[in-house]
This record gives sequence, C-alpha cells and structure tokens, in this order.
Amino acid sequence: MRVLGVDPGLTRCGLGVVEGARGRTAVLVAVDVIRTPHTDDFGARLLGISEAIEGWLDQIRPDVVAVERVFSQHNVRTVMGTAQAAGIAALAAARRGIPVALHTPSEVKAAVTGDGRAGKQQVAAMVTRILALPEAPRPADAADALALAICHLWRGGTTALDRGLPGSPTSAQRQWIEAAEAARRTARRAPAVRPAR
Amino acid sequence: MRVLGVDPGLTRCGLGVVEGARGRTAVLVAVDVIRTPHTDDFGARLLGISEAIEGWLDQIRPDVVAVERVFSQHNVRTVMGTAQAAGIAALAAARRGIPVALHTPSEVKAAVTGDGRAGKQQVAAMVTRILALPEAPRPADAADALALAICHLWRGGTTALDRGLPGSPTSAQRQWIEAAEAARRTARRAPAVRPAR
Repeated sequence: MRVLGVDPGLTRCGLGVVEGARGRTAVLVAVDVIRTPHTDDFGARLLGISEAIEGWLDQIRPDVVAVERVFSQHNVRTVMGTAQAAGIAALAAARRGIPVALHTPSEVKAAVTGDGRAGKQQVAAMVTRILALPEAPRPADAADALALAICHLWRGGTTALDRGLPGSPTSAQRQWIEAAEAARRTARRAPAVRPAR
Repeated sequence: MRVLGVDPGLTRCGLGVVEGARGRTAVLVAVDVIRTPHTDDFGARLLGISEAIEGWLDQIRPDVVAVERVFSQHNVRTVMGTAQAAGIAALAAARRGIPVALHTPSEVKAAVTGDGRAGKQQVAAMVTRILALPEAPRPADAADALALAICHLWRGGTTALDRGLPGSPTSAQRQWIEAAEAARRTARRAPAVRPAR
C-alpha cells in the first residue's frame, strides 16, 4: 500500500509518500514541502497548494491520502490556513476517487514514537529510523508528513489485527496500539475553542 | 459588476449573486444553499461543494467572489468546516482567474444594516429591502450570502468614494462607511484562540 501523508499548512505544506504493508518495512517514496509566500494573494496560495498536490497524486498514484485532522490550535490565523490546506488536499483526492483518512496529531505521534505527546524532534528521529534514512527529513513539516503516512500504514495493520486476522502484534506494535487508543480517548475529550478576551 | 457572495459551511453553504454598480440599485441574480449531509465522507462533502460552486462560476460568470473571512467561532467543528468551504470557494475562483475578496462578518453586517453587531434577522430584513424581494431569502445562509455580495458591491463603491472620485456618499452610505470602519478596527483587535481547558 502506498500512502501520501499531508501535513497541511498555507506557508509550508508537507507531503510524504511511504510504501509498505503490514509486517513489512515501510519505504520512503517521496518527500517535499510546498511553500506559498504569505505576500501572495489568498486564492493564488490555495491554487499553488492544490496544483502541487494534484501533481503528486497523478504522478505517484497513492492508494490513500492521510491528512492531519485539524483541532484547536493556539493561533487562529494558523489554524484557518491549516484547515484550508487540509480541505484542498482532501478535495484533490476525492476528485480522483482516492480515499481520504484523517488522523489527529496525537494519533500520529503515538503511532511512530509510542507517545501521543512526543515532541517534533522525537517524531523526526523515529521517522528517520523507521524509514532507515541517512538523516532526518527537514524541515519538520516533511518529517510530519512522513509520520502521517507511516501512522496510516500501521493503523491499517492495527485494524486488521484488532479484527483477529492472522498475525499477532509485536511488543512495539502493541505499545503503540495502546498509546494510540489512549490518544484517541484524549482527543475525544479535547476540542471546544473560545475566543480569548 | 456581478458579485458572487459565499457564506461558507460544510452542512449548508450559501451562494448569492447580486449585480449592480455604485449609485445604482443592486439586483438579485441568483441565490441558493448547497447542502452536504454530515453522514457523507469528508472528501465527498468537499467535492459536492466544489462542484456546485464551479457550476455557478461557469454559468453565472461573476466578476468577483466575496467570501466570508473566517475568524474564531465558538464551535471548533463548525469553524473547520467553514474554513474549508471558504478555501474551496476561493480555490475555484482562483482556478478561473476570478478575484477573491474576503469580508469579515462585522463588515458585512455594517454594510447592509449600518450596525456591525446586527442580528441574523436584521441582516435578512435589510437584504430583502435592498434587493426589493417579495420575502426574506431562506434559510439564513442564503440571506448571508447575498449580504456578502451586497457588502462587496458597496465597499467597492466606498473605495472609489474614499479616493475622492466623483459622486459623494448619501447619508445612508456615510453611515455604513463609518460602521464598517468601526467594525474593521474591532476585527483587528479580536482574534487569538486558546484551547478551552
């Protein structure tokens, strides 16, 4: 299975493609970060992101697109751009009939590090190790996009394991299954945003 | 000038087209609300909104698309869908080289009612009066989309007036110019969102 992970953002949008299957090593296919200058017109920025993602979808033909599920964030300007870039990635996939999966940041962190509250550096370090890369992908958005793709690859595996299909989880897999479950429970309680006064 | 106003939303997305020029009556061209069921797949909902808006752009050929500028709202689920629908409308316009203008809810309210804090009913009543409609457009999203289009039509006029072009504002126009200025000052101070604990 080939997964395109999208770490959405207007200023920097991370794209990472990983290939793998349950019980097999995940392999890096492609990674990049799309940048659109904040001085550009709003519509032009969205168009730049849309065209880049569409190019990747047509060239790399992923089986699924995994996008970060956007929750509350500290900066309302950032969260709007993030939501819009995420929507545009999902739209581009839907146009091509490619399924879209959403994962929360906590689920992604839990999947690759075993800890739903892991820091950026820890996520980048684990992505580097999992994909056996010579060095950590930069900037952080590139590593985050790959982490999203790995998360989806492994959660797909989990679902199968949860359903009692052949094969039993390794100790490491069991650890992240539990961390992901905990992260999901936390995420359910989390949202609700209020304007600051 | 023909303006397509978009009151963005995933569940209900209002579209309203108004035609007019400075110092001339604004006329209703078209109004509708696109609905996508919340039980549908996320990508499919975005695609439904995108295709509807693209159909309107190709058929009605507006000179400009006016979209609500999304700020903080009480419900984080709603604001994400709103931001995504707004992004998709802006993207569809950008694909066709149609300029996109963003207006805050306060600017829109101030433009049509003279009060940046007007209620939904007041906005709907003024839209009905301005466009000389037999009854208020329903649901509220339809009226809001028309209000956005009217706001853009009139603000376009304002800019010209502000620059000292021929013609002087009527008393009603002066009133909303002042209210819009006040709303802009408020909007600049407003944002910043913190996750609720």
